[in-house]
Amino acid sequence: MNQLIKKNRKFLNEDIIINKYLKKLCFSKKTTFNFENDAGILKVPKNKEIVVSQDTLVEKIHFFSNDSPESIALKSIRTNLSDLTSMGARPYAYTMSLSLNNNIDKLWINKFSNSLYREQKKYDFYLLGGDIVKSKYISVSITIFGIVNKGNYISRNGANLRDDIWVTGNIGDSFIGYKILKNKLSIKNIKIKNYFLNSYFYPKPPVVLAIKLSKLMTSAIDISDGFLSDFEKLILNNDKGAFINHHLIPFSQNTKNLLIKGAISIVDLLTAGDDYQLIFTSNMLNRNKIIKLSKNCNCKTTRIGEINNTKILDFNGYNFKETKKGFTHII
Amino acid sequence: MNQLIKKNRKFLNEDIIINKYLKKLCFSKKTTFNFENDAGILKVPKNKEIVVSQDTLVEKIHFFSNDSPESIALKSIRTNLSDLTSMGARPYAYTMSLSLNNNIDKLWINKFSNSLYREQKKYDFYLLGGDIVKSKYISVSITIFGIVNKGNYISRNGANLRDDIWVTGNIGDSFIGYKILKNKLSIKNIKIKNYFLNSYFYPKPPVVLAIKLSKLMTSAIDISDGFLSDFEKLILNNDKGAFINHHLIPFSQNTKNLLIKGAISIVDLLTAGDDYQLIFTSNMLNRNKIIKLSKNCNCKTTRIGEINNTKILDFNGYNFKETKKGFTHII
Repeated sequence: MNQLIKKNRKFLNEDIIINKYLKKLCFSKKTTFNFENDAGILKVPKNKEIVVSQDTLVEKIHFFSNDSPESIALKSIRTNLSDLTSMGARPYAYTMSLSLNNNIDKLWINKFSNSLYREQKKYDFYLLGGDIVKSKYISVSITIFGIVNKGNYISRNGANLRDDIWVTGNIGDSFIGYKILKNKLSIKNIKIKNYFLNSYFYPKPPVVLAIKLSKLMTSAIDISDGFLSDFEKLILNNDKGAFINHHLIPFSQNTKNLLIKGAISIVDLLTAGDDYQLIFTSNMLNRNKIIKLSKNCNCKTTRIGEINNTKILDFNGYNFKETKKGFTHII
Repeated sequence: MNQLIKKNRKFLNEDIIINKYLKKLCFSKKTTFNFENDAGILKVPKNKEIVVSQDTLVEKIHFFSNDSPESIALKSIRTNLSDLTSMGARPYAYTMSLSLNNNIDKLWINKFSNSLYREQKKYDFYLLGGDIVKSKYISVSITIFGIVNKGNYISRNGANLRDDIWVTGNIGDSFIGYKILKNKLSIKNIKIKNYFLNSYFYPKPPVVLAIKLSKLMTSAIDISDGFLSDFEKLILNNDKGAFINHHLIPFSQNTKNLLIKGAISIVDLLTAGDDYQLIFTSNMLNRNKIIKLSKNCNCKTTRIGEINNTKILDFNGYNFKETKKGFTHII
């Protein structure tokens, strides 16, 4: 839609940005009007419902100024994809508002748009429209549209008593990457260092697994604020409680090694955020199915506890909120 | 949706922002989950289609740092409503990403949210979700959802030969307000000065008229880049041409007075942008209906020319592009 060309015509050359770099992202869908209209049409597939979420990433807040365009593109889109995972929704389309400054050149836009293109191809969703504006700091605001079968979205308050509690992926890897970048943690082994940096630069929400799990999940939340904080929202807002075996909270082997050394604390890992993994609940009868689906998707999925009606979160007696030290021993 | 609480928890108090100021904007729609979920559900009314547009306004680019929260709110939402007018769509819902800095206090948010509330009440649309992030500069990114009867949206390329060309409202008032604000134009009469300033601070896209005209319009574009530039897109992208009686291009009496004095040039007015009025085409048989509907909506609507197949824009022989001076005489 021609919103993309609107405003600040003197700034860069939006026509080139759109026609050379962004147009490929509309996947030739007629409803995008090739980005030549003021708005696009969001066609809703039969018997489906549209899930909507908007997330904005801002330079110097959510990413560093010299982060690669690939990382900025993928972080921007994946934080939004992550929101869809918690609704059990399949990515369908998105709009994007790009606030760009004078540091942006064709190479940057080329890399940025190619990253989005590859991500769209991977999950089969398209860019419906958006706009480009001038700004002192780069910012990317994406509104994402997911689809679910009618009435079949997952919400936060669907957990039932005795449901299992599961977590996908590993917690804290991204935060360790962030600490390395800020020179607050030094890791000599290049391979391990890159493992953490990549976790920070390229979050990997379990997009495909969440779609496959959608019929099995009773409630879900994606971890963006931090495991503890988001877990609390999932359980306590629902007037339920939970018993969690904290030994089972999933960490990567690389993270476990740092915990053993005392180089990092568990409380930090559980409160840091930006994991973009999923906490979800499911009836215990689904255990085998969940394990099988996770294997098929090549995803780690860990059962860590059970829903009860205590209205408290019991981490096996540990109080993560009060204790900042002394948790490395639980691994 | 709880996206609104996500990220930067230390920055301001998002819980208060959401619960005290923004929650009223969800109009108690269940599909918003009271902003307590990761995403909202966009229910599509029967036999309707969803039109989507996204526009971002950035501090120091689209508004001044000390502009009132009411103006920032209304500009943000109305630039988006303007996009809907060009599709003949009725406002339905929107998501909003707020990038806020440390200058924002409760009074600001109160005024900002109350302005949005009044605008929503006026046209009956609701806030579906969004997020709040920290940023050095304020920025508001809105994705708006309009509805049209299935297949009944207006596009840019629907104009037919001999269709009338119409413009709503007045051109250039907002630009004159901008010039006054930048101390590039001085107007002593307070009433007239405020007339122009209000045009800059509070754009008034013809929301209701556009809905009523939707069945009569063959093509439409809202004026955001400037009358000439947007008009060109409407006509030339459609492989058509137009004859325009430039004497008929609508200016307010206040603007005409400035033109007569030579205080402002027509070319500036026609290329400045931010008018958020509508240029549309319609069969000549609809003239009386259009005049009647405009009267009912208390909207000025002016017929300025006719579509032809010349592939050029003929402003009665005048070449606005080449001439910067000498146009004040055409009034």
